[in-house]
Amino acid sequence: MNSFGKNFRITIFGESHGAALGVVIDEVPAGITLSISDFEADLARRRSGQTGTTPRKESDVPEIVSGIFEGHTTGAPLTVMFRNEDTRSGDYAHLGDHPRPSHADFVATQKFNNQNDPRGGGHFSGRVTLGLVAAGVVAKKVLEQKLGSPKISSEIVESGDVASAMADGDSVGGVIECRAENIPVGLGEPFFDSIESLVGHLMFSIPGVKGVEFGSGFAGAARRGSENNDLIINEKGTTATNNSGGVNGGITNGNPIVVRVAIKPTASIARPQETYNFATGRIEPLTIGGRHDACIALRAGVIVEAALAIALAAFV
Amino acid sequence: MNSFGKNFRITIFGESHGAALGVVIDEVPAGITLSISDFEADLARRRSGQTGTTPRKESDVPEIVSGIFEGHTTGAPLTVMFRNEDTRSGDYAHLGDHPRPSHADFVATQKFNNQNDPRGGGHFSGRVTLGLVAAGVVAKKVLEQKLGSPKISSEIVESGDVASAMADGDSVGGVIECRAENIPVGLGEPFFDSIESLVGHLMFSIPGVKGVEFGSGFAGAARRGSENNDLIINEKGTTATNNSGGVNGGITNGNPIVVRVAIKPTASIARPQETYNFATGRIEPLTIGGRHDACIALRAGVIVEAALAIALAAFV
Amino acid sequence: MNSFGKNFRITIFGESHGAALGVVIDEVPAGITLSISDFEADLARRRSGQTGTTPRKESDVPEIVSGIFEGHTTGAPLTVMFRNEDTRSGDYAHLGDHPRPSHADFVATQKFNNQNDPRGGGHFSGRVTLGLVAAGVVAKKVLEQKLGSPKISSEIVESGDVASAMADGDSVGGVIECRAENIPVGLGEPFFDSIESLVGHLMFSIPGVKGVEFGSGFAGAARRGSENNDLIINEKGTTATNNSGGVNGGITNGNPIVVRVAIKPTASIARPQETYNFATGRIEPLTIGGRHDACIALRAGVIVEAALAIALAAFV
Amino acid sequence: MNSFGKNFRITIFGESHGAALGVVIDEVPAGITLSISDFEADLARRRSGQTGTTPRKESDVPEIVSGIFEGHTTGAPLTVMFRNEDTRSGDYAHLGDHPRPSHADFVATQKFNNQNDPRGGGHFSGRVTLGLVAAGVVAKKVLEQKLGSPKISSEIVESGDVASAMADGDSVGGVIECRAENIPVGLGEPFFDSIESLVGHLMFSIPGVKGVEFGSGFAGAARRGSENNDLIINEKGTTATNNSGGVNGGITNGNPIVVRVAIKPTASIARPQETYNFATGRIEPLTIGGRHDACIALRAGVIVEAALAIALAAFV
Repeated sequence: MNSFGKNFRITIFGESHGAALGVVIDEVPAGITLSISDFEADLARRRSGQTGTTPRKESDVPEIVSGIFEGHTTGAPLTVMFRNEDTRSGDYAHLGDHPRPSHADFVATQKFNNQNDPRGGGHFSGRVTLGLVAAGVVAKKVLEQKLGSPKISSEIVESGDVASAMADGDSVGGVIECRAENIPVGLGEPFFDSIESLVGHLMFSIPGVKGVEFGSGFAGAARRGSENNDLIINEKGTTATNNSGGVNGGITNGNPIVVRVAIKPTASIARPQETYNFATGRIEPLTIGGRHDACIALRAGVIVEAALAIALAAFV
Repeated sequence: MNSFGKNFRITIFGESHGAALGVVIDEVPAGITLSISDFEADLARRRSGQTGTTPRKESDVPEIVSGIFEGHTTGAPLTVMFRNEDTRSGDYAHLGDHPRPSHADFVATQKFNNQNDPRGGGHFSGRVTLGLVAAGVVAKKVLEQKLGSPKISSEIVESGDVASAMADGDSVGGVIECRAENIPVGLGEPFFDSIESLVGHLMFSIPGVKGVEFGSGFAGAARRGSENNDLIINEKGTTATNNSGGVNGGITNGNPIVVRVAIKPTASIARPQETYNFATGRIEPLTIGGRHDACIALRAGVIVEAALAIALAAFV
Repeated sequence: MNSFGKNFRITIFGESHGAALGVVIDEVPAGITLSISDFEADLARRRSGQTGTTPRKESDVPEIVSGIFEGHTTGAPLTVMFRNEDTRSGDYAHLGDHPRPSHADFVATQKFNNQNDPRGGGHFSGRVTLGLVAAGVVAKKVLEQKLGSPKISSEIVESGDVASAMADGDSVGGVIECRAENIPVGLGEPFFDSIESLVGHLMFSIPGVKGVEFGSGFAGAARRGSENNDLIINEKGTTATNNSGGVNGGITNGNPIVVRVAIKPTASIARPQETYNFATGRIEPLTIGGRHDACIALRAGVIVEAALAIALAAFV
Repeated sequence: MNSFGKNFRITIFGESHGAALGVVIDEVPAGITLSISDFEADLARRRSGQTGTTPRKESDVPEIVSGIFEGHTTGAPLTVMFRNEDTRSGDYAHLGDHPRPSHADFVATQKFNNQNDPRGGGHFSGRVTLGLVAAGVVAKKVLEQKLGSPKISSEIVESGDVASAMADGDSVGGVIECRAENIPVGLGEPFFDSIESLVGHLMFSIPGVKGVEFGSGFAGAARRGSENNDLIINEKGTTATNNSGGVNGGITNGNPIVVRVAIKPTASIARPQETYNFATGRIEPLTIGGRHDACIALRAGVIVEAALAIALAAFV
């Protein structure tokens, strides 16, 4: 399903090399000021251009197709759409025969009986995250309206050396840490609507994410309780440490929400790979052409922030 | 929300020291043989008794309240319920004043305006996972009926020394690895219904889980693509390595699904903790009585398996 | 699916002659006073006993299984359960062979491949509406807490002569009109979350309901606009007439919500019916034994009210 | 919420005088041939032009924005969009002050605090049903692929005299009967996913629909059981009569599904109406300009068919 959420619900659509892609956002409160320029900063952060990111050129100009009137939201579904421009309809048919390792080629071909759109990964493409980023911009505005001055930020906390990997026709992964500050106590629910469940759900929907942890996460699992417990130090519930990552029992505790996501090294690498060719029935070298990021993590920070904002917007 | 899933949908209810707790499972196919004895093995694995687990004594006998007729499922909602027996209605009121560090006491009190059930954590209790385990038993049966011979297993891959921690009035965490084998290609969807998203969602709903990773996960994020990519070696899509954890593009690739979850050290420890007392307005030592696991991870394997089975049952 | 709703979500379970039936209600606000006695009046209205209703004797004593503590709701899922007492496990197997006309026997047998519970209609039984009535009691309490003094009532506005029909071994249908008064302007949404859509959805879930109309409904369709339009007469939005049934554009307009439901004559009648016998391959007289209502509409008013209250509780 | 459905899920967006409107359809099976020309016939049926329908000129040319590749569906979300052309941005502000009787003006203004899009009814406009019709075209294709030769049709079974009403500056309503033939036994579920519940839900989402009935509906409620029951006459489950409208216990019984919807007379009429003016605080004559249908029912048949097809597509 391409919809997610309750009370702030998003539906994404589109493919890498189709006509357009975008997002429909439902249950946006009426009366929030919104214009094209509000999207610019986050879209620019997502866009390619830096060393290590794809040379595909897209201006990524959003069109607000519905849900807006005289510069403010109306309460009706808000649709933001991006026309694809720099598309290439080259021959992708071979990907079904000789699928790229650790890519969706093999599973997509099998699942959809060869009827999937293979161009640039089709609907599996990371380009579909444009809709997430657009929804994240709106979600941040909703959080601002409801919560005052929340602050959502991210940084790459681990990453390989992109330049040296590119020199080898290789790629690197990375870990992004995302924080939400000035969040009140009480958002989230125990069990299936826990902050961790919903944020984790969205993070794992981002192509390339293979791990998610909150607070001390995996490191905390190796500690004793006396080391990992967060002692409360004042009447606001502030804790001396934040090993819980701002969430207890699935519910925000007023301390910063801290989530880290592991992003795998880009599966598309320039180096030939010895992998099975279903047409010939032999393991053969595959050389991947096209335009690819050597490190997805470089562009993923703003997507991760969007996912966190979207998840939180459902609760405010 | 206490419901999760599509096509195999569970609704959990109950509290640690209330009358009963359990689960309603919707969209169970008709005609699956099921009896009380089917639940015994998994319930026994979850139950306390080993060193490091709580001394609370519960027989955990399930009652199949609905959805069964002459020993098989009927297609109607299947309800499995457990009466609480060894309850203690002692004074929990102080937990609102002097909340246990890294517990839900503080957030529950704030969120529900002191109207939550504080006894043993109420609906936040790990005891509510009885419903997950029961649903997991049914989910495994559904998978068997639909897939033939799937195999879901788990093991503790990291854990501290429980005995030495207990000697100090302390607790330890752990990491559980769960695998699903003999799973066909093609389960899952890109984006919000990805295997990682749904499995991650459920894993993070288990109390104490603070991290989830698939395949090489966080370790993979530190690698190069050429090291992390899984080369296909035959016509079934078998890969030489399984750094993807059996999932590409959100969809199963036929290799074992491998997921690891980080479980924090039990927040309830016997050692006094210096934490804020909202009644006195001072940081004061808190000593936690009651019966607690020194290592939740010892009992969590079967719960983690249940979560994986429940997520997969929606797709078959 | 046996769940319905958002923000006030119900999950029903159980069968006519199984162990028990009931409802899990999710997202009930914490702090609402609730006890067994609150259910008595509405359960009594639903229970059999009048002329024209089934002689099956059930005390219908609810057990509040979860979600309550010291006489108030806790915010956790509220489960209300009813043990079946006066069950009869007689031979229902023949219903698959010689299905009762206008009953679910034929479709249930086909759909569930003979694995459904045939006893008293199993999960198709009108007895499952006990859960709806229980949820309606809670929904009314939520509406009272949020809206002040809403008033939900119902009356039978059309019905055949029950006594003369019973004398003929026959049954009658009826039309129930249900009203909700003192409802504020603004509940509901255009399109799929319109008041009419959600109320209609729930009304059509009640066994035996075959028609639903709001305001002037079918009669209004035969009028001209100038006759059917509701002119506003004051600053509150009060209208001179209420042909809209309190809803415009899917949203409450502050006037009473008026909905009428058509309930078919009870399908189970004592008179023999000439209908196809799948075992013999011939049309043969079927005589239906057992205990049945001659007029479901006599007991359905409280169920219809419950459906309206449940639908509205999601919006307040 | 502007999304509906499970397994064939639609999300509608857009306003009467905004940039565009349309629909995203999720879970469309891959491999269904689809082109722009497939939409022409149903769109033409919906479009204005006949006596009694609005003179607004729209070519209603659909763009398939996503989900299609080389003339077939891909399994990814299918987006169909229509640019608005003949828009008028005239002054609609007065509608908040002097709302049109039986229109959404009053409730929309109140609910959205004057931030709704008032142009031509905004998102409340009947024009938004373009998305439903487009989704209906796809749903019919899905039904054909899965069921063989289903036949969905509709006719106006009751309607006033449009010409004489227009001569008086007035409008008329109507009743549309919609049928689905060649539908197998077993679609639908008891209670909340009953055919009646889901079809009723969608029908009531169509602007102007105020009544829905299946089979003998309201007329059947006035009958005795012996008159209304449908006797089975052969091994296929064919019934001598079809007072059940093809549905028993919420599940299709193989006979034609028959549903009738009551459509109110168009609320916008040319004759002045004496209704409250919130700006002046007086009841004053309101004259409605603009372009309107004198009888919505003339164009609604194809929308009603779409709703039925969409509901059924979720079950096949």
